[in-house]
Amino acid sequence: MARRALPDSARSTVHRKKERGSHDRAVIDAILDEGVVCHVGFPDAGSTMVVPTTYARVGDQLYLHGAAANRMLRVLASGAEVCVAVTLLDGLVLARSAFHHAVNYRSVVLFGQGRPVTDPAGKRRALTAIVDHLAPGRSADARPPTDAELRATAVVSFPIVDGSAKIRSGGPVEEPEDLGLRIWAGQLPLELASGAPVADAALAADVAVPPHVKGSPFPRGCGRAVRR
Amino acid sequence: MARRALPDSARSTVHRKKERGSHDRAVIDAILDEGVVCHVGFPDAGSTMVVPTTYARVGDQLYLHGAAANRMLRVLASGAEVCVAVTLLDGLVLARSAFHHAVNYRSVVLFGQGRPVTDPAGKRRALTAIVDHLAPGRSADARPPTDAELRATAVVSFPIVDGSAKIRSGGPVEEPEDLGLRIWAGQLPLELASGAPVADAALAADVAVPPHVKGSPFPRGCGRAVRR
Repeated sequence: MARRALPDSARSTVHRKKERGSHDRAVIDAILDEGVVCHVGFPDAGSTMVVPTTYARVGDQLYLHGAAANRMLRVLASGAEVCVAVTLLDGLVLARSAFHHAVNYRSVVLFGQGRPVTDPAGKRRALTAIVDHLAPGRSADARPPTDAELRATAVVSFPIVDGSAKIRSGGPVEEPEDLGLRIWAGQLPLELASGAPVADAALAADVAVPPHVKGSPFPRGCGRAVRR
Repeated sequence: MARRALPDSARSTVHRKKERGSHDRAVIDAILDEGVVCHVGFPDAGSTMVVPTTYARVGDQLYLHGAAANRMLRVLASGAEVCVAVTLLDGLVLARSAFHHAVNYRSVVLFGQGRPVTDPAGKRRALTAIVDHLAPGRSADARPPTDAELRATAVVSFPIVDGSAKIRSGGPVEEPEDLGLRIWAGQLPLELASGAPVADAALAADVAVPPHVKGSPFPRGCGRAVRR
């Protein structure tokens, strides 16, 4: 089902390089689903704090989790206005001129207020999604949380209602008079790639690497913009 | 020369998993130098904004740059209390229990106030460092900024005086009673890797790919924690 585009709100409007901005939910969701870590910005004792953390998207919500005493989650659960950013780095853009150097990226910035998820069933669903966001299908294999583990974990939902995506792709944009310079110019694609799985030292040697690890989704697509 | 460790300030103290925190400048600088993009969190019209952007470290300063009208740079130049985060993702940690899933990472969070860099020589030095941070040695090849390009660019310095690093590495930490479960557990190392350089379409075919692109520093070390 196509999701409605996010509104063009004051804070979600892309001011610099407007043509790179998008409120399209399909664009936003694809970036959120490909990312592993988000950066949460929130007010903290008269200052601003930015914390990297894992997450998962389920429909119109992001779920964040952590220890019950986690400061960032407490601020989110309190209803403070926060910002969640997900950035995928796709490559370096090396122009003939220093001025036109850039990076290719796909990013999402969301604004709003979180809400604590306190009912055990809702917490279990959110934690399942967060584990499966790391490795799709993993939660079916892993030992589920006990009631005590659930109590030790805080979960916050964050609605996808206000925000936008911003994307840069392609090669350098140069001044016309620089195009004849004999300086190499182009892109260096970058992607988040996985190495070979490293089994835990205590694991019995005959426990096979499961498909959700072996057929891991990395590269999940950094550099995709260059290849398609 | 060894740099003095950052102080253990109220906001830079690692509260969760203290053993993962560090105020050591060598640890902090290595993470800052390996990252490509930082996330800047700042107060913006009663809300919080997080913006990803490139940067470079020179000694005890980070330099950020952008268009002269860039909102984030204007807030930084105004002396607002902001936060700069750099996060390197080193791998997924797949535990036998859902509860103990994690990611391996190296991150730095810095706090403080930026200052505008307005003198042309200082701006040139900062922009040279930012270009060389993308590809070491690149600025010696690229056409330097004109005076007009320099005027169109805002540069802000941000001092490395308050903050800390946080690092997680290694395999899953499990409950003792889970170690016998026949569930695959271990790490999936991740690294930011470069693909083959893509030359600009307008580039003459006989302009060679320079060493700073060919011998590019990617992987710059995501996954390094796993390999050593």
